[in-house]
Amino acid sequence: MTRFVWPTRVYWEDTNAGGIVYYANYMKFMERARTEWLRSLGIEQTPLKEEQGLMFVVVDIAAHFRKPARYGEVLQVTCAVAAATRASLTFEQEVYRDRFDGELLLDGRVRVACLDAVRYRPRPLPKSLVDQMTAGDR
Amino acid sequence: MTRFVWPTRVYWEDTNAGGIVYYANYMKFMERARTEWLRSLGIEQTPLKEEQGLMFVVVDIAAHFRKPARYGEVLQVTCAVAAATRASLTFEQEVYRDRFDGELLLDGRVRVACLDAVRYRPRPLPKSLVDQMTAGDR
Amino acid sequence: MTRFVWPTRVYWEDTNAGGIVYYANYMKFMERARTEWLRSLGIEQTPLKEEQGLMFVVVDIAAHFRKPARYGEVLQVTCAVAAATRASLTFEQEVYRDRFDGELLLDGRVRVACLDAVRYRPRPLPKSLVDQMTAGDR
Amino acid sequence: MTRFVWPTRVYWEDTNAGGIVYYANYMKFMERARTEWLRSLGIEQTPLKEEQGLMFVVVDIAAHFRKPARYGEVLQVTCAVAAATRASLTFEQEVYRDRFDGELLLDGRVRVACLDAVRYRPRPLPKSLVDQMTAGDR
Repeated sequence: MTRFVWPTRVYWEDTNAGGIVYYANYMKFMERARTEWLRSLGIEQTPLKEEQGLMFVVVDIAAHFRKPARYGEVLQVTCAVAAATRASLTFEQEVYRDRFDGELLLDGRVRVACLDAVRYRPRPLPKSLVDQMTAGDR
Repeated sequence: MTRFVWPTRVYWEDTNAGGIVYYANYMKFMERARTEWLRSLGIEQTPLKEEQGLMFVVVDIAAHFRKPARYGEVLQVTCAVAAATRASLTFEQEVYRDRFDGELLLDGRVRVACLDAVRYRPRPLPKSLVDQMTAGDR
Repeated sequence: MTRFVWPTRVYWEDTNAGGIVYYANYMKFMERARTEWLRSLGIEQTPLKEEQGLMFVVVDIAAHFRKPARYGEVLQVTCAVAAATRASLTFEQEVYRDRFDGELLLDGRVRVACLDAVRYRPRPLPKSLVDQMTAGDR
Repeated sequence: MTRFVWPTRVYWEDTNAGGIVYYANYMKFMERARTEWLRSLGIEQTPLKEEQGLMFVVVDIAAHFRKPARYGEVLQVTCAVAAATRASLTFEQEVYRDRFDGELLLDGRVRVACLDAVRYRPRPLPKSLVDQMTAGDR
């Protein structure tokens, strides 16, 4: 299982009056990492939707918040496919402070379903996509 | 010019690590007030888009931030049509702490254009909409 | 176990280009419900922090997204204490479309820790708070 | 007047159900550029606050939205000091699609005040800061 790492900076927009990153905003960071992992494989989601009528939707999340991130910090957000079904992918994701394998701030799992973009019904991941996603593991 | 008032509570999501409401989030509060003003006139934006192919898009904003709002406060957000053209509306909006005509936190102007929802080109406001919007002023 | 219900309207700010509510934003709705549940018990978080040096921080979330919410809809967000330890509370939360016990869009669990607001270390919930929280169950 | 440029990618979190970037979110992009401009000068805001008791707060914004940005696009956000007083800075900022001096999506002005971080009263910009900010213009 290859881990993809995407860095993110904490800006004012991400923090709250408790002085730390607002918990919902880690979900944004984790999605940026999933999107950039796809992009690193050559998969752009706009043509996927417009040409193939496919979109990804989050169906399950579980996350454990271990330490708070603060304004100005650099975070490393990881993304790895932990499991796959015909129409969904489960990611393991972590958020580290400063450096990958630095201080662990959050770990979690996110399951994403592949849907028909119009009817919001499950659709199998196209074989071409699965091939692109698993090419790096061979 | 009638002023519509819509109350909003400040939650953690709205604040930043400076201990105050993040400046971009007032734009959200102001949009909630514009949406609820339309709703109060019987105008829902989803059918407007799906049945008439129309959407509103913000084209100009100007705002003066006078005092900061904080976590837990109730804000009163006003909305009044200050000017109209064939295909746009200009709103005057204020944000008050606690009570309408309490402490003024922000005042601004927002111009919203009526667009074709597919081609993003200006489209005249339908007469039925203008009638609904101005009914209260008669 | 009493369930508290708090209504929320979906605005443009909450949606994404997929045409549905962005997944992280349900975390905001759920926090509004937890905050309003505390408020309904007479507990305001600002004095809790400023006078007693306490703050609540989310430490665990798990959520299952069943159906998407869309622009303009009214959601009913529930909140019930499912478990408590000396320094944490676990909430069961659901999001329904339109009416409480209408269509279930999301269900999840959120564990919140009570922390020292300066040092971010666990602190036992004050007895007065536990009394206020459990008063309704007697 | 030197223009600083900071790239930003549009993610799902930034868009709305109209299919375009939500107007308030450009304010986030513009703040990232202002923050990174300061950082490029060696100025970090956390020590500014903790050691010198200073913070920057937005007091005026004006923006003209010319064209919408969409999911997946790269934006170039500029930042240049257009005017300065003893206790405030006015920035001219633009957002371009793809490349700096590509298609102009937004232009605006943002005035930021230097405040005492505790009492939220205006405070003169420290001379060391002004020196750092103007060093590049010499």
